[in-house]
Amino acid sequence: MCDYSIRNARVEDASDILRLAKDLAHHDHVPPEIMTATEQDIARDMSDWFHSIVLEHEAAGSATKEIVGFALWSYGYIPVVGRNLNLASLYVCPHHRGRGLGYSLIQSVAKIGYNKGCLRIRLLANESNKKAHEFYTRIKFTNSTRTEGWELLHIYGPDFENLALQQPKIPQDF
Amino acid sequence: MCDYSIRNARVEDASDILRLAKDLAHHDHVPPEIMTATEQDIARDMSDWFHSIVLEHEAAGSATKEIVGFALWSYGYIPVVGRNLNLASLYVCPHHRGRGLGYSLIQSVAKIGYNKGCLRIRLLANESNKKAHEFYTRIKFTNSTRTEGWELLHIYGPDFENLALQQPKIPQDF
Repeated sequence: MCDYSIRNARVEDASDILRLAKDLAHHDHVPPEIMTATEQDIARDMSDWFHSIVLEHEAAGSATKEIVGFALWSYGYIPVVGRNLNLASLYVCPHHRGRGLGYSLIQSVAKIGYNKGCLRIRLLANESNKKAHEFYTRIKFTNSTRTEGWELLHIYGPDFENLALQQPKIPQDF
Repeated sequence: MCDYSIRNARVEDASDILRLAKDLAHHDHVPPEIMTATEQDIARDMSDWFHSIVLEHEAAGSATKEIVGFALWSYGYIPVVGRNLNLASLYVCPHHRGRGLGYSLIQSVAKIGYNKGCLRIRLLANESNKKAHEFYTRIKFTNSTRTEGWELLHIYGPDFENLALQQPKIPQDF
């Protein structure tokens, strides 16, 4: 296992992160037309909008390392509870699976979040992704949609723009 | 309506935000034992961990304003998509409802997020909270759990600590 290592992502990893994120999105059946983020977006938004760690592999006899997995998250807050970590992505390339590398990534994310005072990790898993559910259940995540009824609502595209660009009805100072 | 106004929250609003957040959590049946956040936590974490706006009311003939509602959010990232806004709370005190103030709050949140380059707003609504679902559906939010199968998974308490505090199996540089 010593030919693998995990480190904080750097701006120059943006193209690798985008490549792996697209692999993951494809696997999650994300419609290609909404995948508009570019390498420049990823590089610009790293640190301010999200944090990421990358999994590197050093092939035997090779002097170079290849990025073969990543995890990406943002921090959030539940007012009466406190700090939490919102895991957006966790991915290991197919050829490198079955070695506990996904576990090492989530363990690293948990450690970083814990050290920052987070009290929980939250993530969204698609009900169709049985392997993801099995993985997270095995490491003691619980499905809060099933047990507590939490459902994800969202607004985007023209509906979001219309809401955002309306004339306010009561005074605002921002 | 001109006796209401909306402004960015300030550190000195922490006790009002916590009071309103507790009202909302009570309404959402959040178990009291997990409501551990204090006024000091809220004041410390404002700006770095979350952002908030407050709704003020100036009663006729009164020189003072009272905070009667708030919205609270953090920013997040979907790697292949881009920036998004995670709305954690939106609340208007019962006596002030029925005047479109909740709508003014969400419209303000949308405007702030849009101006920061967010492409969507996400939020979690409990399936038991029919009024919340009606409100968000009316203003064009869609239920992504129902239409796309996204479910919320989480880990917290001793399970989270155990995951975070384990000895890593592969080298890490953080």
